[in-house]
Amino acid sequence: MRDFLPADVRKRNYVIGIIKEVYESYGFEPLETPAVENLDTLMGKYGDEGNQLVFKILKRGEKLEESLASGELSDLALRYDLTVPLARVVANNRNDLPKFFKRYQIQPVWRADRPARGRFREFYQCDVDAIGSTSPVVEAEVISAVSGILSRLGFNDFTVRINHRQLLTAMLDAAGVVTGMHIDALIALDKLDKIGPDAVAREFTDRGIPGAQRLLELFGELNNSSDTDKLQTLASSIGNNAAGNAALADLASVLNLSGPAVTIDASLARGLSYYTGTIIEINVPDLAGSLGGGGRYDGLIGMFGKEQIPACGFSLGLERILVVMDERGMFPPEIAESAAADVLVTVWSDETTVHSLKFANELRSSGIRVTTYPEPDKLGKQIKYADSIRVPFVCILGESEIAEGKVKLKNMRTGDEALLSPQEVPSRVK
Amino acid sequence: MRDFLPADVRKRNYVIGIIKEVYESYGFEPLETPAVENLDTLMGKYGDEGNQLVFKILKRGEKLEESLASGELSDLALRYDLTVPLARVVANNRNDLPKFFKRYQIQPVWRADRPARGRFREFYQCDVDAIGSTSPVVEAEVISAVSGILSRLGFNDFTVRINHRQLLTAMLDAAGVVTGMHIDALIALDKLDKIGPDAVAREFTDRGIPGAQRLLELFGELNNSSDTDKLQTLASSIGNNAAGNAALADLASVLNLSGPAVTIDASLARGLSYYTGTIIEINVPDLAGSLGGGGRYDGLIGMFGKEQIPACGFSLGLERILVVMDERGMFPPEIAESAAADVLVTVWSDETTVHSLKFANELRSSGIRVTTYPEPDKLGKQIKYADSIRVPFVCILGESEIAEGKVKLKNMRTGDEALLSPQEVPSRVK
Repeated sequence: MRDFLPADVRKRNYVIGIIKEVYESYGFEPLETPAVENLDTLMGKYGDEGNQLVFKILKRGEKLEESLASGELSDLALRYDLTVPLARVVANNRNDLPKFFKRYQIQPVWRADRPARGRFREFYQCDVDAIGSTSPVVEAEVISAVSGILSRLGFNDFTVRINHRQLLTAMLDAAGVVTGMHIDALIALDKLDKIGPDAVAREFTDRGIPGAQRLLELFGELNNSSDTDKLQTLASSIGNNAAGNAALADLASVLNLSGPAVTIDASLARGLSYYTGTIIEINVPDLAGSLGGGGRYDGLIGMFGKEQIPACGFSLGLERILVVMDERGMFPPEIAESAAADVLVTVWSDETTVHSLKFANELRSSGIRVTTYPEPDKLGKQIKYADSIRVPFVCILGESEIAEGKVKLKNMRTGDEALLSPQEVPSRVK
Repeated sequence: MRDFLPADVRKRNYVIGIIKEVYESYGFEPLETPAVENLDTLMGKYGDEGNQLVFKILKRGEKLEESLASGELSDLALRYDLTVPLARVVANNRNDLPKFFKRYQIQPVWRADRPARGRFREFYQCDVDAIGSTSPVVEAEVISAVSGILSRLGFNDFTVRINHRQLLTAMLDAAGVVTGMHIDALIALDKLDKIGPDAVAREFTDRGIPGAQRLLELFGELNNSSDTDKLQTLASSIGNNAAGNAALADLASVLNLSGPAVTIDASLARGLSYYTGTIIEINVPDLAGSLGGGGRYDGLIGMFGKEQIPACGFSLGLERILVVMDERGMFPPEIAESAAADVLVTVWSDETTVHSLKFANELRSSGIRVTTYPEPDKLGKQIKYADSIRVPFVCILGESEIAEGKVKLKNMRTGDEALLSPQEVPSRVK
């Protein structure tokens, strides 16, 4: 977990600002949930590995005393993602929300994971979800929104890979993997990118799962085919499987409604256990992990209420985006080199300070950002400080300037000084 | 802890936006710290009551197993305020920060407190602090910034009360309270507003502290005096106490540099134990607690590093501000009644959906916020949905409109419809 000094916060806010703007341009509305959830809400939603990575909060006072014997030391936990809290909110507030609820949420989540490049124990997710429809139009709009964000940020080399949980099930069935072993098989498949086909095959063998060879051959066959060819090859590989063929139809619709950056990757599995339909991941060549991922989870909201409500969403990883933008130098200069203020007003003596503070407030009311030197000091020191915080102008208000009713405006870049009336300063600075 | 639905988030963001803008206009820079701190960082900084209210995070895996015997079940904790994390950041990053570091920070904090009106277990603090100077100019600028925020939000009846920890010490000395009992006495005094002078006198007696009568008489005498008279009365009450007289000089300076909303309240104590100098609180008549508080803490940063660095700041309570603004109806209508989007684009059939999504993207590129209906459906249902999310315009793209290369624009307020070319829509909507 990290501190963000001002230059870091400015970069983060620049990216967050664009994400918000694009999400809002698609009609998604803001939602915020608390950092702390009931432990019960989170447990069992993310798979076994996820359960292990949840930060739990210790019970307090008498409750803790009573629990020491039973070993149930925690009742609350830190948010692990933004999807499960959304599902809880939708189930609890169904009547206060529109029929189709489109929300975005940009907040931190916490995982007790091993830190790595672009992976932290506290990190921001920038989620967008549409609730209430099973139509692939939802997938297409979500993909369009997150692609729009990456384009606005200056990314022009990202790929959007899509797959479908029901298609994976059909492929595993066709490969002879029994239903009880599907989850293990998906966990192994999910590592294909990282560890390669030979290691995945070994993992299938180690876990006692047959069918790895057939699956890996299929993926080899799909490599470098067009999406149309992929759809055909997959259809013939799964045969007469109704759910699998419906999945292929969904994927075909999403492709048809989307731009050329979207492509099918039949080996994409994604770790989280709540996905039920289309799954999506976005990558760039120079980052091992993904910039974000998402998919359809038509069963999750029903776990928190009586009604089963379909949903689909995507989560952009802020830290991943920032790592790549930093390495590629993608921040506009006004963000990367921003100063703390436009003007520093000097403070000369106890007697003249009132005058300096009043003048600073006059400048602020013209929309100028003004910092004041915090104590009477030598002029040289005040100028040196102004330089250290990269303020472009200094307003010098010494005894003689105040006596004359004037202000000396110093341009820090050129070194030029001009004696002005206070009213002239705002337009000169702007 | 609460969920914030879109209308809540918009109100919160409106207030946060103004707070940011004003803090930045004073040259304060943004800082963010993690929600989770080492437990050691927080313990012992907030007084005994504070220690009790810290949310602790359970150790994980092997570490937890090893600790079950010793009972030290926690190594991390949730942030309790934004001042202690700032002190840690300043001590750790002294060389990367300017000589005078002026920062603002708007983030949630967590306290295991009993909830009450405007008091929650997760709440946002909006802090502003200036590091590196002992000059009362700092207090004056901090007070000016937070007063400026409240004025911008529409508050015109707030009062800023100031006092000084060294003055309190001098008053307690003069009243015959021995040094070892000062903290107990301050805790009792801090309740004067809530429980009244008789109850405070009883609490002094119960805790075995003398001098309550003398102090309460002094406060009675100060009531309704001008600040000039208060300074005189206080000076004669503490006699020849050097630190107390320096405190009075500081308060006089702050008054001199500040507007008429600032006044001395010699009974103001404030709960947190890290304050060393001026203390500040802002109140409005219709809220029992304060809108915010702050003060000088010249000893805190030294607890995290070798160097003792002076500091002063203020924390506005976002939830308190929102409670009062809600009750008084202070939000501008465009915030309180904001719609999810400017336009809804209808989706007619599987065949025409591509067309609708493309047209929606064209509108977005003209800066219009556009939501699409997520699936083909009857027109009446789509219009009803548009109405439920209060979208002011609907673009109808049925088969006939698409065949003609037109769009039907429906004004949801008037009910008027117009058949337009796609290029005419943006200007009509704007």
